[in-house]
Amino acid sequence: MRAVDLIHKKKNGEPLSAGEIAFLVEGYCRGDIPDYQMSAWAMAVFFRGMNAEETAALTLTMAKSGDQVDLSPIRGIKTDKHSTGGVGDKTTLIIGPLVAACGVPVAKMSGRGLGHTGGTIDKLESIQGLKTELSRERFFAQVNDIGLAVIGQSGNITPADKKLYALRDVTATVESIPLIASSVMSKKIAAGADAIVLDVKVGSGAFMKTVDEAEALAKAMVDIGAQVGRQTAAIISDMDQPLGYAIGNALEVQEAIDTLRGQGPGDLTALCLALSAQMVVLSGQADDIEAAEKLLRQQLDSGAALDKFRAFIEAQGGDPAVVDNPGLLPQAPVMIEVTSRQEGYIQRIDAEQLGIAAMQLGAGRATKDAVIDHAVGLVLRRKVGDHVAVGETIALLHASRNDEVNGLIAEHVQDAYTIGEERPHLSPLLLSVVTADGVNRYS
Amino acid sequence: MRAVDLIHKKKNGEPLSAGEIAFLVEGYCRGDIPDYQMSAWAMAVFFRGMNAEETAALTLTMAKSGDQVDLSPIRGIKTDKHSTGGVGDKTTLIIGPLVAACGVPVAKMSGRGLGHTGGTIDKLESIQGLKTELSRERFFAQVNDIGLAVIGQSGNITPADKKLYALRDVTATVESIPLIASSVMSKKIAAGADAIVLDVKVGSGAFMKTVDEAEALAKAMVDIGAQVGRQTAAIISDMDQPLGYAIGNALEVQEAIDTLRGQGPGDLTALCLALSAQMVVLSGQADDIEAAEKLLRQQLDSGAALDKFRAFIEAQGGDPAVVDNPGLLPQAPVMIEVTSRQEGYIQRIDAEQLGIAAMQLGAGRATKDAVIDHAVGLVLRRKVGDHVAVGETIALLHASRNDEVNGLIAEHVQDAYTIGEERPHLSPLLLSVVTADGVNRYS
Repeated sequence: MRAVDLIHKKKNGEPLSAGEIAFLVEGYCRGDIPDYQMSAWAMAVFFRGMNAEETAALTLTMAKSGDQVDLSPIRGIKTDKHSTGGVGDKTTLIIGPLVAACGVPVAKMSGRGLGHTGGTIDKLESIQGLKTELSRERFFAQVNDIGLAVIGQSGNITPADKKLYALRDVTATVESIPLIASSVMSKKIAAGADAIVLDVKVGSGAFMKTVDEAEALAKAMVDIGAQVGRQTAAIISDMDQPLGYAIGNALEVQEAIDTLRGQGPGDLTALCLALSAQMVVLSGQADDIEAAEKLLRQQLDSGAALDKFRAFIEAQGGDPAVVDNPGLLPQAPVMIEVTSRQEGYIQRIDAEQLGIAAMQLGAGRATKDAVIDHAVGLVLRRKVGDHVAVGETIALLHASRNDEVNGLIAEHVQDAYTIGEERPHLSPLLLSVVTADGVNRYS
Repeated sequence: MRAVDLIHKKKNGEPLSAGEIAFLVEGYCRGDIPDYQMSAWAMAVFFRGMNAEETAALTLTMAKSGDQVDLSPIRGIKTDKHSTGGVGDKTTLIIGPLVAACGVPVAKMSGRGLGHTGGTIDKLESIQGLKTELSRERFFAQVNDIGLAVIGQSGNITPADKKLYALRDVTATVESIPLIASSVMSKKIAAGADAIVLDVKVGSGAFMKTVDEAEALAKAMVDIGAQVGRQTAAIISDMDQPLGYAIGNALEVQEAIDTLRGQGPGDLTALCLALSAQMVVLSGQADDIEAAEKLLRQQLDSGAALDKFRAFIEAQGGDPAVVDNPGLLPQAPVMIEVTSRQEGYIQRIDAEQLGIAAMQLGAGRATKDAVIDHAVGLVLRRKVGDHVAVGETIALLHASRNDEVNGLIAEHVQDAYTIGEERPHLSPLLLSVVTADGVNRYS
């Protein structure tokens, strides 16, 4: 077998066999197949696509390229959730306790933030004392005990995906649905979950710009799940503005607590419920989505979800009192108001620009080794569709100091808002559900 | 400017500017842009193509990447000829003296053979004493004096093309018309000719499998010529079997001499006249093709073409007596007859297999450093459309010895012939002419 012949085959639109894909990816990982052949192959895949069998074969090859977590010491059907990323995305903080309260075992490995997007581990570390490095044994025991544990990603998970992704990033071959789908799914499969629920964002602020593209990506991932025996479902949601109001680590923990109390923002609550319902069904804790949603509402209303969050914080060494006393979370010393420059309706909020602003305030990392400030960030006061007057506060910066730099950041936040005379069309948050049964658009 | 952005642009089907192409190719040559980005770009070009401006920009950038020959010391319009390669292609040996006899200055740089294709320099070196290494000054003086000189390619011509071609070869990105066209034309432009005539082969034995593909390639090359101010024309000809009868260095020189005497094979003579007529017109020695063909016929009939070949051999130190005494050319000691295994019409002759057989006999090089035997090769006795009986001689091997190895080669030559009951359809040799005025198919 020669790599050049396999590139040729793919270039001509013929599918590669599982053995051929393994030859390429394993050879690439070992260093036998050079970067320049893999990038040519990736570009051919961009143009020719891959069928379901090829995509599944690539996913499995990458999943097997490094450590594979064995979650079998944990009882029940382990269900994982993955989000394609977003600014102010605190869904894991809410969904974890919420589905655990329904009896779904959640053994979650999460990452840290980089650039304009945050990471669940950073957010959790806002809680004093909370540890995210647990031994494998303690991790399993905690899930068996209270139903929920969250640790930082460690070990050598999917090195093939890391190497290939880094190459795609510099060769303009990122935007290929089968390559994105296999990258996401390889990590989830290596992480050991039995079932997977995917949160796929669509919109100007997301990687997928149209519902059709997002559905195609979701379909590709659900198909991979079917091919490799891991039940998978996806919720497609709109991301034309940040989810909820808070961006920044402690601020998002606070918003997550509010949501678990049943007092969170409507969009955030709705998306968490939709994703959680899929997890509850896949995990066998409810027969259908309707029953799952009813069960989930009960956990919010009864306080059971919030109790689960308290138990989780305590189990991982944190102070559960933060749940009832927000003052125990890190507090920024300075508030800077961001006001509207003009009167009108908010047409659009550029989530990426807000993510960059939060990072610049200190909530995120411009480089891998940067130290973050858990207290800082920003809270939106007005969102798309709201009418604002000149000088009205549209967002509040939680900052470490009031200086010229933060003044400039406030201006960037102003710039992230587009305000116009027309009342904007508000697209619904939840767009469609993609499962093994097919694509169902919310009416 | 970043390479990844340029790959992205091309991937999305947008043309690159001349500056952007120079950034990529010059950066690649310097080693600033890595192989893996160039191969991704080449694959994107395979799928998206390049427009005439991009192709011309790539050609010029590659032409300028190394030595550029300045032919201005030679008087007149210097016209070069390029063949896309073929087995038994001795056209340069014929066309050089033929057009020189018409007053076209020919300052030709040629290569050596590798693999199953031969090279003009090897063929000329069959003539005892003939030198193909001349100083630049002597090369120019000889062209000004007798109108014709042929030397081996030396110096550092188009290193960018060499580097890019080697990369394309291992990344399945060879078959791209703009990339092939710019590769060919960059070398011709660096070699300094004022006008260029291209011999583009089509057929199962050639790189271009259909007339449409060959015409598209020819059109791309003619367009480059127009963009960079070098008049260019192309003849598309059929290559479903070798041209003429002889394959092997001295054997091909002999066939070239026969052709210059007006007694050569019909197909070889017709193609040489067609290519030569374009050169004579581009060089301004005749007003139109008809007048050029008349002038060329006169050179054959009067013996002027053969005289020019004698003068050329003598000027480069060879013995011109070979022209009239073929026995002075190297002679193989052993003749091995290849006979037909069955009765019927010859349907097809696999030129590549014959080229490999000739190489194995010693006429060509399996590796760059192999030493060749000028005497050996093979002569076809029957060609496509001929009817043969069982045991009838279809080819004659001129071999260095009669051993088991050469017996196997004889069998390979047998295998290269496809014989069947039906009289095959004989496609015409000359298919079309492509000039700045457009594509004209021979009726």
